[in-house]
Amino acid sequence: MTQRVRVHCFTVTQDGIGAGEDQSFERPFGHADPGALLGWAEATASWVNRTDPGGTRGLDDYVVRDFTRNIGAEIMGRNKFGPIRGPWSNYDWQGWWGDKPPFHTPVFVLTHHPRPSFTLSDTTFHFLDATPHEALEQAKAAAGGRDVRIGGGVTTIREFLDADLIDEMHIAVAPYELGSGLRLWDSPEELTGSYHLERVPSPSGVVHHFFWRH
Amino acid sequence: MTQRVRVHCFTVTQDGIGAGEDQSFERPFGHADPGALLGWAEATASWVNRTDPGGTRGLDDYVVRDFTRNIGAEIMGRNKFGPIRGPWSNYDWQGWWGDKPPFHTPVFVLTHHPRPSFTLSDTTFHFLDATPHEALEQAKAAAGGRDVRIGGGVTTIREFLDADLIDEMHIAVAPYELGSGLRLWDSPEELTGSYHLERVPSPSGVVHHFFWRH
Repeated sequence: MTQRVRVHCFTVTQDGIGAGEDQSFERPFGHADPGALLGWAEATASWVNRTDPGGTRGLDDYVVRDFTRNIGAEIMGRNKFGPIRGPWSNYDWQGWWGDKPPFHTPVFVLTHHPRPSFTLSDTTFHFLDATPHEALEQAKAAAGGRDVRIGGGVTTIREFLDADLIDEMHIAVAPYELGSGLRLWDSPEELTGSYHLERVPSPSGVVHHFFWRH
Repeated sequence: MTQRVRVHCFTVTQDGIGAGEDQSFERPFGHADPGALLGWAEATASWVNRTDPGGTRGLDDYVVRDFTRNIGAEIMGRNKFGPIRGPWSNYDWQGWWGDKPPFHTPVFVLTHHPRPSFTLSDTTFHFLDATPHEALEQAKAAAGGRDVRIGGGVTTIREFLDADLIDEMHIAVAPYELGSGLRLWDSPEELTGSYHLERVPSPSGVVHHFFWRH
């Protein structure tokens, strides 16, 4: 099986914005409301952070289940890893996710300021000052034959799209506009030169956008 | 994790028919056209019998992927297993699927005429003259903690629905009528007393019906 490079369950607004401005420790998505972006996924039975046995098992759940299917490594940007910019003054920050991050694989964090790798539960974070191609080479080697997820944020997904490295992508479009922030696209149509695009409206209100290569 | 009892990728016509009349060796679906019923699934990248690297990766593919996810055993009716009725005159018939059946788990075939178990590749077929409750007990024990799929046909799914044993069900409704044959329902609304129902039209023309318990 060929290793694939995939984006899953990344949510943007109708105006294409995946994170608001002024990210901080208290507001990982800046001025964007995380619930308005991620509520569709949090309501599902398979949501990675679910702790009770409830949740929906319709379309959105099928999509959420795929977040972990056959994934062997994730690549994320530094701003998905945390709100701190520039050189590290210490290594106290270990991500937003507590002692049990929902990745369960090696995670490669792209940053101009590498720091030592560390492990929390079954997730090991590595830090790379590397191009998308170089990072992907390392992530594929670490993935044990499985696929690599490009975890975001917007800047990282754009870099991998621009380098033509993404095979398959699921973007959920939430039914509101944000006006400003980090923009993934002006329109998903921009990608249809390289990808098939299937739009599927969900009863939850988001519209799933499935992309795969021509 | 609780073991769940699931139906996946079972397709019926708009008038609720899952198989035509006059099943034979040449026509496993009787007078129904298998391509008209299953074409939506066969077009996907994850279709269990796919032999080339092509196929779609949109909504229908997400649904097809779920056919094998966390399944540890299947229960099927004798008419899904083969066209022969009544007592076995010999055991030459080993199912429609050749040397490598697409199940990869134990399969329990419900029949009033049991015969010895046999194994093809990583699928073992067992034959039970049993009620749905009894068959499910055996299948759950064989599933190694994973879920049990009720594989069909129509009669078997109806028996398990009527015994209130199904937790989750995906039925694809194909956009044509057949008029006669084995009918799963007059309308999917019949099940909404016990189940949530989400209808999701696919670009391929089928309408996915996702059911899960209230």
